[in-house]
Amino acid sequence: MRGNSFGKMLSITSFGESHGPGIGVVVDGVPPGLEFSLEELQNELDRRAPGQVKGTTSRKEPDTAEVLSGVFEGKTLGTPIAVFIRNTNQRSKDYDKLKEEYRPGHADETYMDKYGIRDHRGGGRSSGRETIARVIGGYFASLVIPKVKVKGFISKLGPFVHKDIPANLDTDFAPYGYPDASKNKDIEKYLVDLKKNGESRGGQARIIIDACPKGLGEPSFDKLKADFAKALMSIGAVVAYSYGLGEEFADIDGSVASSSRDNFGGIEGGISNGSRIILNVTFKPTSTVGEKAKEGRHDPCIIPRAIPVIESMVKLVLADHYLRQNAYSNGMWDE
Amino acid sequence: MRGNSFGKMLSITSFGESHGPGIGVVVDGVPPGLEFSLEELQNELDRRAPGQVKGTTSRKEPDTAEVLSGVFEGKTLGTPIAVFIRNTNQRSKDYDKLKEEYRPGHADETYMDKYGIRDHRGGGRSSGRETIARVIGGYFASLVIPKVKVKGFISKLGPFVHKDIPANLDTDFAPYGYPDASKNKDIEKYLVDLKKNGESRGGQARIIIDACPKGLGEPSFDKLKADFAKALMSIGAVVAYSYGLGEEFADIDGSVASSSRDNFGGIEGGISNGSRIILNVTFKPTSTVGEKAKEGRHDPCIIPRAIPVIESMVKLVLADHYLRQNAYSNGMWDE
Amino acid sequence: MRGNSFGKMLSITSFGESHGPGIGVVVDGVPPGLEFSLEELQNELDRRAPGQVKGTTSRKEPDTAEVLSGVFEGKTLGTPIAVFIRNTNQRSKDYDKLKEEYRPGHADETYMDKYGIRDHRGGGRSSGRETIARVIGGYFASLVIPKVKVKGFISKLGPFVHKDIPANLDTDFAPYGYPDASKNKDIEKYLVDLKKNGESRGGQARIIIDACPKGLGEPSFDKLKADFAKALMSIGAVVAYSYGLGEEFADIDGSVASSSRDNFGGIEGGISNGSRIILNVTFKPTSTVGEKAKEGRHDPCIIPRAIPVIESMVKLVLADHYLRQNAYSNGMWDE
Amino acid sequence: MRGNSFGKMLSITSFGESHGPGIGVVVDGVPPGLEFSLEELQNELDRRAPGQVKGTTSRKEPDTAEVLSGVFEGKTLGTPIAVFIRNTNQRSKDYDKLKEEYRPGHADETYMDKYGIRDHRGGGRSSGRETIARVIGGYFASLVIPKVKVKGFISKLGPFVHKDIPANLDTDFAPYGYPDASKNKDIEKYLVDLKKNGESRGGQARIIIDACPKGLGEPSFDKLKADFAKALMSIGAVVAYSYGLGEEFADIDGSVASSSRDNFGGIEGGISNGSRIILNVTFKPTSTVGEKAKEGRHDPCIIPRAIPVIESMVKLVLADHYLRQNAYSNGMWDE
Repeated sequence: MRGNSFGKMLSITSFGESHGPGIGVVVDGVPPGLEFSLEELQNELDRRAPGQVKGTTSRKEPDTAEVLSGVFEGKTLGTPIAVFIRNTNQRSKDYDKLKEEYRPGHADETYMDKYGIRDHRGGGRSSGRETIARVIGGYFASLVIPKVKVKGFISKLGPFVHKDIPANLDTDFAPYGYPDASKNKDIEKYLVDLKKNGESRGGQARIIIDACPKGLGEPSFDKLKADFAKALMSIGAVVAYSYGLGEEFADIDGSVASSSRDNFGGIEGGISNGSRIILNVTFKPTSTVGEKAKEGRHDPCIIPRAIPVIESMVKLVLADHYLRQNAYSNGMWDE
Repeated sequence: MRGNSFGKMLSITSFGESHGPGIGVVVDGVPPGLEFSLEELQNELDRRAPGQVKGTTSRKEPDTAEVLSGVFEGKTLGTPIAVFIRNTNQRSKDYDKLKEEYRPGHADETYMDKYGIRDHRGGGRSSGRETIARVIGGYFASLVIPKVKVKGFISKLGPFVHKDIPANLDTDFAPYGYPDASKNKDIEKYLVDLKKNGESRGGQARIIIDACPKGLGEPSFDKLKADFAKALMSIGAVVAYSYGLGEEFADIDGSVASSSRDNFGGIEGGISNGSRIILNVTFKPTSTVGEKAKEGRHDPCIIPRAIPVIESMVKLVLADHYLRQNAYSNGMWDE
Repeated sequence: MRGNSFGKMLSITSFGESHGPGIGVVVDGVPPGLEFSLEELQNELDRRAPGQVKGTTSRKEPDTAEVLSGVFEGKTLGTPIAVFIRNTNQRSKDYDKLKEEYRPGHADETYMDKYGIRDHRGGGRSSGRETIARVIGGYFASLVIPKVKVKGFISKLGPFVHKDIPANLDTDFAPYGYPDASKNKDIEKYLVDLKKNGESRGGQARIIIDACPKGLGEPSFDKLKADFAKALMSIGAVVAYSYGLGEEFADIDGSVASSSRDNFGGIEGGISNGSRIILNVTFKPTSTVGEKAKEGRHDPCIIPRAIPVIESMVKLVLADHYLRQNAYSNGMWDE
Repeated sequence: MRGNSFGKMLSITSFGESHGPGIGVVVDGVPPGLEFSLEELQNELDRRAPGQVKGTTSRKEPDTAEVLSGVFEGKTLGTPIAVFIRNTNQRSKDYDKLKEEYRPGHADETYMDKYGIRDHRGGGRSSGRETIARVIGGYFASLVIPKVKVKGFISKLGPFVHKDIPANLDTDFAPYGYPDASKNKDIEKYLVDLKKNGESRGGQARIIIDACPKGLGEPSFDKLKADFAKALMSIGAVVAYSYGLGEEFADIDGSVASSSRDNFGGIEGGISNGSRIILNVTFKPTSTVGEKAKEGRHDPCIIPRAIPVIESMVKLVLADHYLRQNAYSNGMWDE
């Protein structure tokens, strides 16, 4: 009820402050007997870890996952899976001065309004470190729906724009998540310059879902498009969401919209139709700018590290709806 | 679990098919002792009723609300409030031919994929009539948060664009929800022409929330911006959502974004900050086009009738979060 | 959150006051395509209707079910099923004098404490009429688990004691639910005498569940025995619950308890083991005694009419857990 | 949905296997600013720890609590509180032989039926160690309702019977939870003899709740008596539950039952009435008997250690309902 859990049949319960002992998650609803790989989980975590872009952020925490429950001899038990990541590099001294500093667009002040108390050593629960829990959840969700492909990429970052869907979604777009690798040098320079100037930048990302089974999503409030919206808008920096043609739908007539099913981004009546699903999100620039932003640990642009987070939230929604649909449609009594 | 309920402390459970006996809702969690007015409830329902725009839709159902429970001598009892609206004008014969016709962007086919059965006489649960339940819920939500003002208006409809926030939000923007009344004649002509041509159109709307208390929204998954997203994206025709500057955030630097708190649309860290909240939604054109769209009961543009629906969904989120925050912050034991 | 909904995958949301327009329920989570019979539903309702025992209660309301949604051409649609029963015999004048009368053991006073308002014309939400919603829910639950047999019977009513499990559970124990039909005359006399004396009586019932599949129940908080407990203890008159040997377990050594699996009533570790499940409940005497109890509409003993209610609550738990287990165990991706 | 969470406004999510890394819990919904004492939490854990009864169980694990989140400078933050206890004494070698051994009344076999996999090194999730999570939850619940007194005691253990409510509930009934301290020597001898004989025993306990505010409990499915039932019946060894007079209600007339409000155990219409609440539970004997039971780590009777567990479950229900009632009744808008 305090909003730290997400999902119904497959749920994650997130806990931890950025400058407390660590960040953790309980993933409940993973079916038993699925093969678990700590290495693959760690790979996913490394994708969101800081310090990947030269010259932009120096906070390099290992983010080493410890599995506390729910896995035995390399397989899921069907019991709740808890994973914990110790914070190793809090450097809370740096943050003491933040005690009374409220950044616009950030949770600093609203937390005080809401709770009357906060862990002023850092973002606390509102820190980006909380997304660790989501990435862990996303890994386990992918075990439930192994055939579904979920791929995010940057579609806009400063002057770099790539709206088209890349031909080969199996390519690794690391380190930036931008599909055109020939721009990586330029992007690096752009980010380093932002950093030097104490500036930050938002941008946009797209998520492609392939091989999604038909029939996922519930027709009234839990439409697939609505649950994706909630999942993605629950990420701190995300400020806009759309699917299919998105805002372009406002500028075309119905006859044009209906001319191709593709325009509806794989979701009709709130339910997956078996076609490719296309989602779009917009990120605001990170809140810390000016002199403070020049310090080591601040990202000038969060999107490269956010790609595994948005993919994870989408996987969680898909796995949850998969299990929900499974409950009602399969194995009915007489079969 | 089938997604027909929305909200936690204040919840609505929606039921009914467009061509069955009627549409209804159970509103649970309304505190006891609040003054109920059947007339005001009916007014809200009339705002979303069809037939308000000359020449565009002739299906004029009375949509008369019957309160089945939870109200006694003009006051809420604190028990679940059920309201039912009988369908009076189903004309299911008209729809028989729809049995095998699947409209792009519509739920027709995905329902069959999902359930293997549907009420082919009309949209069934996916019909716009389902939004009656939401408007009823919104009315009761407004009893919980009577001081909060929630006002929606059309910001884009074909060539008509009004992004600015109207000076006087107390004005009734009927019948179209467009803030500039001087354009109403032109809008009518535009809609009638769409209808004549068997064409349809989407557009955009904005929702302004004033006098929202600080501290609403939960910091992790149930951020206020995320719950608004889910609420609004759960409406059939809505395809995009944003708050504050929305997609414009992708095109400005952090120093510009942080220059004014207003850019964040009244929500920081997922929590209301006491300032005006600004939300934006985009609607796709209605799915029925061509000869069929020229028939009486089809709207060429749904947004005018959708304004009370989006306002209602926003009120439901606000009242729910108000009650949630109330649980944790008030009346602690010793006080 | 106001406790008017029960169940997760298969849920019922109950509404209605005893002296308002009627009693209703929304049953959500019934899979699509199941065959519905209004006649069978009505039969279940008739089993709990008043007026079956000569000389004990004269309030004979028809309790006619109207299906408002979710069923089409004799089959469930997979959408929420709403059923409504109009109150036809409220006679609220009789109850006016009850406005300030608080019966011990009854909700009269606690409702005022809790809500500060109540529908004083009768029990309101706390009336036994609310159990109509449960019987309707139980009917639909039985469609989900048609092979499971759930049979309740009276094991103690005044001097009549029948702890043994009847040999033939297919026998109809009407009208009292007592397995030994040869006692029916005596029971009738006993009840009529109670009534004459303005007296009331509780008793005990047992519920037998046969052909329950293995593996239902979740091992931690949602153990099958715990969900049965909640389901049955949520009925107004039920004051004690046990399964298997129940309270007798306090008086035997572990070697005796472990000597037969039957002692554990078909549930081990909170999970069904495929054997017969045995549950026991105790009812308190109805609250109305003295002169008022001699009036027509009061039952001197509620258990005969409560049998279909306890059966229904048990069916709801079983169907809910069946769907839950189904979600996780069947149709995994590769199969 | 897998039943590892309990509570709505105040919830606990339990995780951990008896022979995995440890047992943990996430407590969500604790209001911010409450004073936390690690020492008091540890005291509660020590009450349920094994090894307190001489000669009956030698497994002495420290059960040291580590708080992973949600507490800062001695106060709750309002964010989720995670606590973890490492398993230090698993001795899994002892359990290898248990791989194929299924004890009657135990979860061994039903787990295999349900999941097709289990952590055979011990009870896994079904181990009594899982109750650590409940005791931690109960500690935090008590911070929410500091004025409510919840006291459990043994009312029956073998030949020792003490049904009466002790005069002084502030007395510590350690180490057995039996109110008559003069019997402690005899109880110890009884337990040691059971152990020597490879025997086990169940019994009964009562829970007294004083100073419970009026108005807790929701009138339909979430009646206070029903939520207590679920809470207590979710404990592995509990086989029967009642409140007030319990099963005695089956043997008295309504006029007698209604003669004193005390008979209803402080709950009327499912709602607390401000009087003392009385609950009763029955425990079955522990499942391990015979030669294996003579080994060090098995309790011949679990009730002494279960007293803090049943108290904790009751506190969780009370705090949850307190917050729920708080949401709806306090701080309404104009006040």
